[in-house]
Amino acid sequence: MSVLVSGSIALDHVKTQKASQENLLGGSASYAAIAASYFSPVGIVGVVGHDFPSEHLELFKRKKINLEGIEFSSGETFRWSGEYMEDMNDRETLTVALNVLESWQPAVADSQKAATTINLLANSHPLNQHSVIDQLGDGPGFTIADTMDLWIQISRNELESLLRRIDLLVLNDSEAKLMMDTSNVVAAGHRLRAMGPKYVIIKKGEHGAMLFAEGEFFACPAFPLHEVFDPTGAGDSFIGGFAGYLASLGKSSYDFSDLTSAIARGTILASFTCESFSTHALDDLTPGAFEERLAAFRTFCTFA
Amino acid sequence: MSVLVSGSIALDHVKTQKASQENLLGGSASYAAIAASYFSPVGIVGVVGHDFPSEHLELFKRKKINLEGIEFSSGETFRWSGEYMEDMNDRETLTVALNVLESWQPAVADSQKAATTINLLANSHPLNQHSVIDQLGDGPGFTIADTMDLWIQISRNELESLLRRIDLLVLNDSEAKLMMDTSNVVAAGHRLRAMGPKYVIIKKGEHGAMLFAEGEFFACPAFPLHEVFDPTGAGDSFIGGFAGYLASLGKSSYDFSDLTSAIARGTILASFTCESFSTHALDDLTPGAFEERLAAFRTFCTFA
Repeated sequence: MSVLVSGSIALDHVKTQKASQENLLGGSASYAAIAASYFSPVGIVGVVGHDFPSEHLELFKRKKINLEGIEFSSGETFRWSGEYMEDMNDRETLTVALNVLESWQPAVADSQKAATTINLLANSHPLNQHSVIDQLGDGPGFTIADTMDLWIQISRNELESLLRRIDLLVLNDSEAKLMMDTSNVVAAGHRLRAMGPKYVIIKKGEHGAMLFAEGEFFACPAFPLHEVFDPTGAGDSFIGGFAGYLASLGKSSYDFSDLTSAIARGTILASFTCESFSTHALDDLTPGAFEERLAAFRTFCTFA
Repeated sequence: MSVLVSGSIALDHVKTQKASQENLLGGSASYAAIAASYFSPVGIVGVVGHDFPSEHLELFKRKKINLEGIEFSSGETFRWSGEYMEDMNDRETLTVALNVLESWQPAVADSQKAATTINLLANSHPLNQHSVIDQLGDGPGFTIADTMDLWIQISRNELESLLRRIDLLVLNDSEAKLMMDTSNVVAAGHRLRAMGPKYVIIKKGEHGAMLFAEGEFFACPAFPLHEVFDPTGAGDSFIGGFAGYLASLGKSSYDFSDLTSAIARGTILASFTCESFSTHALDDLTPGAFEERLAAFRTFCTFA
């Protein structure tokens, strides 16, 4: 019962109004894999360059993540730098260097294929996401894909065909509205479902997330944080935690309440991600701290 | 066990991308009173002009609202007109004519004073809100005040002194951030509580609402609507429904779970308001339709 996470592995340079740090572990697959590893065994598929610090690989190893799907290239690692304004909802991307990511083709290792029950296609080019599905064949019981505005804009056809091959699509509210050309996020969720996936999760950052299914719906607030230190990777941590929790159930199929439980767990992991640079708070997360926050979160959402 | 609602009574001209209508019943007190009347007896305190249509008064009467606190002036009724863009979150105020509201001083009728257990100060000038508190004396067990950006900007001192006289402050997220000079809505909620009220509710429109209390917190999503017809008055309906539900409990004090239950009810009433012009959907609301939506809403918010 394992999650396979494919997507980007990055070196981030993040500036906030309070601090700045370079060579941070970043990328959609990194956050999602480390979050998923809190709940279940994980394999990762991605590419890194010669400049990728060994400490980041050590972190993956410490989390018992199967690294056999990582390609070690002689080029430079994908790099992203961004700056957060005083309002953490305002982020400016300063530079993006695709580097080794540009020509990367994901290669799932044999040791990863057999174990996979949840296939998490973290944000990446839709053609790479198709490729991972092709390589896994009929193996995994449940396939999740994340996407972003860039692919909606430049790779719409490949994204639409992907929607017919996955069980669950996850994306931000602005992206859902963009893709469905509507200002109503509820309408966007239902219409996205009609394009293929049985489930759609729309992420709304500080406003939580919504799950759309046939005749069912779930809305989950975010965990309330008095202070957000660095929200980079929160969405990736959310879906990684979601996938890891599902895998940990050891089932061959999931019902709606499994998914809502998984959303609550993903929400808690995302809240920790927001409290440090990179995956630092996730790295240090203890069951005590997680359970305490989950218990509080239950009371935050309960009414009679 | 009655709610006293004071605030504005307006004639609205609302334009959406689909329809437009004039002389609609509007104003903070109108929406809040009609919403509250779903749950409990209500009295209203406000002012109208000679042009105020009798059909609107008939509606108040049909809802068994005590009208003795309404001043009938020879001037013109307060008028507001606004236009909603395709994205219902974008609203442009076209004209505002205060008219009789400009020199209005609220006068609570004796028949209203005795019955009041919840004093709902719907959005209005803080000096008017102070005046209603003065007139009610120690009578009501629970005082709620709504406010808006205008009063935060031009009447800050009177608003701050009001905060020390009320049990619960309710305002929008943008207003909470403005008042506390922070971009973090959670921090804003806690800091507003520190200024006086035992409870603070921050309304987030389509993203729901948050309740802040000493050592306790509650987050409630909005009821998901595929289509929003006219959101004017949704916030007023929310807090009116909240207050009416509390009054209906017949208690002399309320615990945190009473407030969370009231927020869920207010959320349902606000969702109906969004589905028609003015208070039309509230006017026609049946217990069957309300209970059906509340039952669905419970499932939307439940996780294990």
